[in-house]
Amino acid sequence: MQKFVNKKEDMVDESLLGFRRCYINTIEKTECLRALKYRGAPVRDKVGIVAGGGWGHDPAFIGYIGQNMLDAVAVGDTFAPPTSDAFAAAFRATDAGKGVVCLCGNFPKDIESAEAAIAQVAPEGITVRTVIANDDVAEADAGKRRGATGEVLLWKVSGAAAASGYDLDQVVRVAKKTIDNMGTIAVGLASCIIPETGRPNYLIERGTMEVGVSHHGLISKDTCKLRTANETADIMLDDILAALSCRRGDEVAVMISGLGNTMLSELYILFNRVYERLENADISIYRAMAGNYFTSLDMMGATLTLLRVDDELKKLLDLPAFPSAFDHFNPGI
Amino acid sequence: MQKFVNKKEDMVDESLLGFRRCYINTIEKTECLRALKYRGAPVRDKVGIVAGGGWGHDPAFIGYIGQNMLDAVAVGDTFAPPTSDAFAAAFRATDAGKGVVCLCGNFPKDIESAEAAIAQVAPEGITVRTVIANDDVAEADAGKRRGATGEVLLWKVSGAAAASGYDLDQVVRVAKKTIDNMGTIAVGLASCIIPETGRPNYLIERGTMEVGVSHHGLISKDTCKLRTANETADIMLDDILAALSCRRGDEVAVMISGLGNTMLSELYILFNRVYERLENADISIYRAMAGNYFTSLDMMGATLTLLRVDDELKKLLDLPAFPSAFDHFNPGI
Repeated sequence: MQKFVNKKEDMVDESLLGFRRCYINTIEKTECLRALKYRGAPVRDKVGIVAGGGWGHDPAFIGYIGQNMLDAVAVGDTFAPPTSDAFAAAFRATDAGKGVVCLCGNFPKDIESAEAAIAQVAPEGITVRTVIANDDVAEADAGKRRGATGEVLLWKVSGAAAASGYDLDQVVRVAKKTIDNMGTIAVGLASCIIPETGRPNYLIERGTMEVGVSHHGLISKDTCKLRTANETADIMLDDILAALSCRRGDEVAVMISGLGNTMLSELYILFNRVYERLENADISIYRAMAGNYFTSLDMMGATLTLLRVDDELKKLLDLPAFPSAFDHFNPGI
Repeated sequence: MQKFVNKKEDMVDESLLGFRRCYINTIEKTECLRALKYRGAPVRDKVGIVAGGGWGHDPAFIGYIGQNMLDAVAVGDTFAPPTSDAFAAAFRATDAGKGVVCLCGNFPKDIESAEAAIAQVAPEGITVRTVIANDDVAEADAGKRRGATGEVLLWKVSGAAAASGYDLDQVVRVAKKTIDNMGTIAVGLASCIIPETGRPNYLIERGTMEVGVSHHGLISKDTCKLRTANETADIMLDDILAALSCRRGDEVAVMISGLGNTMLSELYILFNRVYERLENADISIYRAMAGNYFTSLDMMGATLTLLRVDDELKKLLDLPAFPSAFDHFNPGI
């Protein structure tokens, strides 16, 4: 395995320690090794914003800890749920008496762990509400849809709402509105290597691609011949526009994320087509983002996310946020 | 080739178009397709800051265009120098009558192209001074040293100096000081695929690593057995500390960059060791950065850069900058 690692069983914990040391002005530990918090948390009079999920999605989830975004994150093993102790530590570290919103993807074990933690901290007077992201439109049944890259926009909007003085009910409301107006689809071009085994979790044949693959390499919607960038963008966009019932005159935020080992330049090429298609469909782009926001180890591929925005969502997207993993050049802000 | 691409011969130009469309509020085209500029450039009464180099180093070089950093960038083909027309367009787009500083890595063809462009714009009354980065300490002869990831810190410092009102001579002076106090070394774990050929540019055997490899996959200093992350960090750090003659009491900025297909978490693990070693050596870390700052397509590996800082360099590092590729969550700043 061509990786920078000491003992593979220490990889998660060592990376969290290194992250904390690197962002020493922003990030602090909590009572649990697998929960990290924003140095400013709990922020006075603010609803706490917590996210949690498996390791292996750099810069998610920990990289989004920072001012006006996530207050704390619970981290699991590779593609595995955080423990309830990690969630509980995150809740305790962020509650300022106004309650905490816990943002999870729709993965039953993650939710189960969060729910156990909620029961654990309830006797301490900490109120936690969960909001479950299910933006991956590859699955037609909305109840079964998984959480995907759209979680980053959910964190952005919810963090901004809390920072703007929204109370617990109002943060939950706008978080749900975000989810209701968001769709993501992924295309995988090559599998990732699972560090614990040194092996790929499944095989994508050269010359093919997996449409609707998940961040965990679960079964995809469709295995097909590798298409051009434009054809691929069309496939992705068609799926999302249909799922969101987008219409002429809508405004959207567009987020294209690499899955790990896909160049930013390829994402820009995908964006070209999305830009042209939306322009032709009279759907305006309020915000465009292309980068590595939510990866799957060293997988090749990309996700496309659309969020239909209204005035409230636009205002919340506009509030500056300072997620640690993106905040290299603005020290002291 | 498992990539999002239409025609491979259009990949560079399509990616530049997509980048410009994605960062429509920050980035503008110039008279030349292969030169992009900051929308605010030329900035009144400010020395212009231009960088130029080959394509394939995402987010370098174009991703660093933005307020208080690069005003324009000239882009070549994959790992190839920009044309003199691209450099000339960048110079014209950024000169506000105070002159332009052109920052290049120490690659003879890049420099030749920049010099031709300088001659081209001189009759138009545009004064351009070049500063050549040679931070890659893998080569013992300083004159032959290549430019590497440290160029990002050079852009940061020079951009801040220009934004702080330094004149042309003073920007050149502080840029040279930055180079004189900076060292970078790269370790390659796997080669990249050159999009034009669909093939790796050279082979790194599994179980081995290349110490002192360049961003272009040129000959490396040493091929050796793959080491642990800590052993690798030691090798890298020893080389740089020796090259910079670092001593107890020094203060440094530390930058660890992935080369494309290396997880952020691996960079944090490398950083752990650097942190501990510097602490033990009584060298204090003024600023720590770990991310994908300067890659080589989809190469696996990392670079370590140290910049020894004094009060002036610290102040310039501290000035907030807004390079487009990192500025996703602070719209309107």
